[in-house]
Amino acid sequence: MKYTIALLAGDGIGPEVINEAVKVSDAIAKKFNHEITWTPALTGACAIDAVGVPYPDETHEICMAADAVLFGAIGHPKYDNDPLAPVRPEQGLLLMRKKLGLFANVRPTFTFPSLIDNSPLKRERIEGTDLVFLRELTGGIYFGEKGRRDGGETAFDNCVYTRAEVQRLAKKGFELAMTRTKKLCCVDKANVLETSRLWRETVQAMEKDYPEVTVSYEFVDAVAMRLVQWPNSYDVLITENLFGDILTDEASVISGSMGLMPSASVGEHTSLYEPIHGSYPQATGLNIANPLATVLSAAMMFEDAFGLKEEAEAIRAVVNKSLQQGIVTEDLVVKGAKAYSTSDVGDWLVANL
Amino acid sequence: MKYTIALLAGDGIGPEVINEAVKVSDAIAKKFNHEITWTPALTGACAIDAVGVPYPDETHEICMAADAVLFGAIGHPKYDNDPLAPVRPEQGLLLMRKKLGLFANVRPTFTFPSLIDNSPLKRERIEGTDLVFLRELTGGIYFGEKGRRDGGETAFDNCVYTRAEVQRLAKKGFELAMTRTKKLCCVDKANVLETSRLWRETVQAMEKDYPEVTVSYEFVDAVAMRLVQWPNSYDVLITENLFGDILTDEASVISGSMGLMPSASVGEHTSLYEPIHGSYPQATGLNIANPLATVLSAAMMFEDAFGLKEEAEAIRAVVNKSLQQGIVTEDLVVKGAKAYSTSDVGDWLVANL
Ligand SMILES: CC(C)[C@H](C(=O)O)[C@@H](O)C(=O)O
Ligand SMILES: CC(C)[C@H](C(=O)O)[C@@H](O)C(=O)O
Repeated sequence: MKYTIALLAGDGIGPEVINEAVKVSDAIAKKFNHEITWTPALTGACAIDAVGVPYPDETHEICMAADAVLFGAIGHPKYDNDPLAPVRPEQGLLLMRKKLGLFANVRPTFTFPSLIDNSPLKRERIEGTDLVFLRELTGGIYFGEKGRRDGGETAFDNCVYTRAEVQRLAKKGFELAMTRTKKLCCVDKANVLETSRLWRETVQAMEKDYPEVTVSYEFVDAVAMRLVQWPNSYDVLITENLFGDILTDEASVISGSMGLMPSASVGEHTSLYEPIHGSYPQATGLNIANPLATVLSAAMMFEDAFGLKEEAEAIRAVVNKSLQQGIVTEDLVVKGAKAYSTSDVGDWLVANL
Repeated sequence: MKYTIALLAGDGIGPEVINEAVKVSDAIAKKFNHEITWTPALTGACAIDAVGVPYPDETHEICMAADAVLFGAIGHPKYDNDPLAPVRPEQGLLLMRKKLGLFANVRPTFTFPSLIDNSPLKRERIEGTDLVFLRELTGGIYFGEKGRRDGGETAFDNCVYTRAEVQRLAKKGFELAMTRTKKLCCVDKANVLETSRLWRETVQAMEKDYPEVTVSYEFVDAVAMRLVQWPNSYDVLITENLFGDILTDEASVISGSMGLMPSASVGEHTSLYEPIHGSYPQATGLNIANPLATVLSAAMMFEDAFGLKEEAEAIRAVVNKSLQQGIVTEDLVVKGAKAYSTSDVGDWLVANL
């Protein structure tokens, strides 16, 4: 088969980790007789530098025309100290999500047996953790009306959700739960917020369509606690945009394998796959960043966007092998062992596929 | 000196833990020659049952007339499964905060050397943690306009902050930082929210008045991560209402001593002191709940509301002694050792003051 993939390397370590994912993807394609055309496009700080906006129209057209988007990371320190700057990389991210209709961000958190001791949590707390967040990504307070009144003395952000927005996200949650242990947790703040009450009543009304799924409803503050205490008690969690931002990041560090966590954003048009670790500016150009989260994001892309399960499994198998054999970058290296470079790890994966 | 304390025992284990804090407070008062008058008043589910509303006017008057409020917990399972019920205990809590002008919730998270192994985090991660959150408590999305449109199909919650609201909270944060290690972290989401940008610019403008304080600005999602990874890297954190709700609860479980964490809510009128653990309905009436968080909340009350530092220290000292000697309820007991009842612990504290 033939696939066109929009390649948005972005900023910081983005280009380096993307490079390894491309190598691995090309090797897989060759092995299974597929043909991949990569279409690079600008986004983030590098797009602002080149053309003045963080998500150029041309990039959007390339994404729309592609079968999938593989995304690195965006962000640059020169903007980090000035969130009040008029043009910022993050605006590109939000615009991209909105224009591609990426309403569901799929964020798994799982453990690798060989990496459990990297977790800040004790072994008995984290062992067996395998959960997935579905974060709503194009609504809520991120996209509601915002501004100032009273000559700048009062600021406001509006959080808005429609029943249809909740339904389409929850539907994905129920469907995902059906393929797993059939446990779904709806995270909200229904004891305070009207939008949360809409979330809760909408999900409650959908329960009857999925009689096999056991649904629980928990307040966001309680989930923030239980994620640290008993992360392995969760399976699929669905939540709104801002709660999802906070909780998925909290969840990402508990496994101790942040550098390995892939993600997908799916919705109305082309789906997007990206590592969750961000642009890690301090490591830019040093060939030390861990490429595995991006490689595993490519695996998600093969499986979910192209329906190529065997190819995805082959990628995951070789990643597991590299972990077992200690072919890892410095973030994962056991004391005393040798750290491999970003490109070494990619080369090893390609050679061992 | 003479003090009048409004006693809001509330629901669940509230009355039991409050009882022990009263015993300890009375013993301290006797020892140091003070006179305490306790004025009990209804709030929460028990107030709904008795008079139909969760924060009756009479209770409010009692609080306003008192030198301090000692609060147990509110909440009852009969409301938990139905956040859409028209009258709920939580409404009483929000009304109480608003009417008493309790705009700053002070939530310390610290470790007791003898309890470090209770933490879900590894020892080296949690050791030395001693941080305080100042959560804004009467503004933001909790109190903004909320409702439905389009025949109930669209829900909205408005998040609003004024510069004056940010200033009065931040002022407390700077002042607290000055009494500690002079490190202040402002937690916001200034890369997305206009209210957060107002927070950030307001705090930035106040920096010059506190030249000794080192201020950092971090996004809420990053803080949710670092709290699990390196909680001991924080000192004083200030944040808005909803972020504070989520992060203070996350912080409360990392120490492993949730049953010991006190809190204060301060502002325009009478200050309120309460344990953070909530109403723990399953334990109601069993005389097993840990009273130490409430006893330590009373210590905060003596120190902050009455300016009685020596009295507060005496309470903290006896609590430490009880922990060292293993005079603790079942939540803290080491395997094989004897668990004491709620009232046993209180009796022991009084006897050993
Ligand atoms: C950069 C920022 C706007 C973004 C978000 O808050 O959605 C990021 O934190 C994320 O989670 O992808
Ligand atoms: C019960 C609820 C309304 C309350 C809040 O969200 O403020 C609670 O979670 C708290 O933190 O005191």
